[in-house]
Amino acid sequence: MRLTTLRTADGTRAARVEGDVAVELDAPDLGALLATDGWRERAAADGGARHDLAAADLAPLVPRPGKIVCVGLNYRSHILEMGRELPQHPTLFAKFPEALVGPADPIVLDPASQAVDWEAELAVVVGTRVRRADDAAAQAAIAGFSVLNDVTMRDWQYRSPQWLQGKTFEATTPFGPVLVTPDELPGGVRPRLAISAAVDGETVQQADTGDLVFDPVALVRYVSAIVTLNPGDVIATGTPGGVGHARKPPRYLTDGSVLVTEIEGIGRLENLARSAAAVPA
Amino acid sequence: MRLTTLRTADGTRAARVEGDVAVELDAPDLGALLATDGWRERAAADGGARHDLAAADLAPLVPRPGKIVCVGLNYRSHILEMGRELPQHPTLFAKFPEALVGPADPIVLDPASQAVDWEAELAVVVGTRVRRADDAAAQAAIAGFSVLNDVTMRDWQYRSPQWLQGKTFEATTPFGPVLVTPDELPGGVRPRLAISAAVDGETVQQADTGDLVFDPVALVRYVSAIVTLNPGDVIATGTPGGVGHARKPPRYLTDGSVLVTEIEGIGRLENLARSAAAVPA
Repeated sequence: MRLTTLRTADGTRAARVEGDVAVELDAPDLGALLATDGWRERAAADGGARHDLAAADLAPLVPRPGKIVCVGLNYRSHILEMGRELPQHPTLFAKFPEALVGPADPIVLDPASQAVDWEAELAVVVGTRVRRADDAAAQAAIAGFSVLNDVTMRDWQYRSPQWLQGKTFEATTPFGPVLVTPDELPGGVRPRLAISAAVDGETVQQADTGDLVFDPVALVRYVSAIVTLNPGDVIATGTPGGVGHARKPPRYLTDGSVLVTEIEGIGRLENLARSAAAVPA
Repeated sequence: MRLTTLRTADGTRAARVEGDVAVELDAPDLGALLATDGWRERAAADGGARHDLAAADLAPLVPRPGKIVCVGLNYRSHILEMGRELPQHPTLFAKFPEALVGPADPIVLDPASQAVDWEAELAVVVGTRVRRADDAAAQAAIAGFSVLNDVTMRDWQYRSPQWLQGKTFEATTPFGPVLVTPDELPGGVRPRLAISAAVDGETVQQADTGDLVFDPVALVRYVSAIVTLNPGDVIATGTPGGVGHARKPPRYLTDGSVLVTEIEGIGRLENLARSAAAVPA
């Protein structure tokens, strides 16, 4: 099953995706849908107005997650190629919901940053409240997967020892276009999918989500050992090599850059980077 | 004006504090109250059922803030005494709402941590939606101040380069007991108040909130340059010297420790540290 959040004239609306069509569901967005008992059955069976998906205006997949937990360097091949040891524990940091934008929205370039970089990531969306999950509970708590680009202001990220301020600029983080349930993906709750980012048509990141050091199930277990995960919470699982900051010379998004982030079997984000002055507030 | 959030038989309820009495207001909690237009006038004028404050059960002051932004080392005298230079930018990190507990609730000691430490802090509560605030807008956006103890699992904080996982354990962070509006405090929106923490009756932290490197107005300006601040959002402004981790030998909270956190003119948190096994889930 594939689910999304539409923008309609009356606000946002959860929807089921059937091929080229989005079928409205009785919930204001995917986060609200996931918070209802029996959401899988309801989402599969219900159906209201139908929209042409290609013409639909998509919101951030979950517009207001209670938590967005991001994971630092988590791709095995990239860690090893840099000569580092694999970490014993995941590195976790946060992003606030105001950072999110839809899968075709502009990425807002704040004039205060001169170093806006990309980080293509597999996103886990939580579908069940879970605390201190064992392996089975963690698997059951995963509603599905989506695509997120953890766009980062590198200059602000490294202003202080903590990355948050470079990670949570308003309207910078595309998220969507759909949630795909694990049963539809090779590898299921530990999906093995090609992930990539391209800037202005040039592929800059390319990896396989099967290469994660801490896979989605391990991350749900780890985070839920610390704090309750609730329906609609998001875990962004980290990015592979190929970010602009690591290039010599570094390369960043500028006004007019087109960033495409894609995961095989899930979908594609295509976002135009625009300076803040060019984007309505 | 002094405001709080009560727990009642029907759930939480915002209230105005008048001396020894809490007067119910027409909002489910302080966060919801702050999100309504004209909250200052409504909160001052309205009033329902009255409760003896001493006997009242207080919730976390804002039970579900949209954002909790925490600030790293921010007390001038403590930075200088350690021989460091004053920072040019604040260090920001996040805490999730599930970490919060009320001003008299137990602090839950997770068996996974052997290093639970205290950090007494002045908390800023946002009362107006604000983005890219100038000085006047930042001042106007501050609803008031409260007390928060940024209780930290030091072993988890330092497991990875990012502190989040040691900062957001479930039910560890007392917050309250009241919000005090700036007009009632010496220094107003830049309050100058004695702040302290005591463990089992021994004072372990003692400072003045006027000693902040980045004061509340500066912090609202800084954070709002990155992301929109909304009513009910919280900024925890950092802790002075005297944490247990810096002692030789280190000292931590253990089952049965009583942690008192107090800010002159605002109020007092008194929390019993209890091992997770002793606390109902």
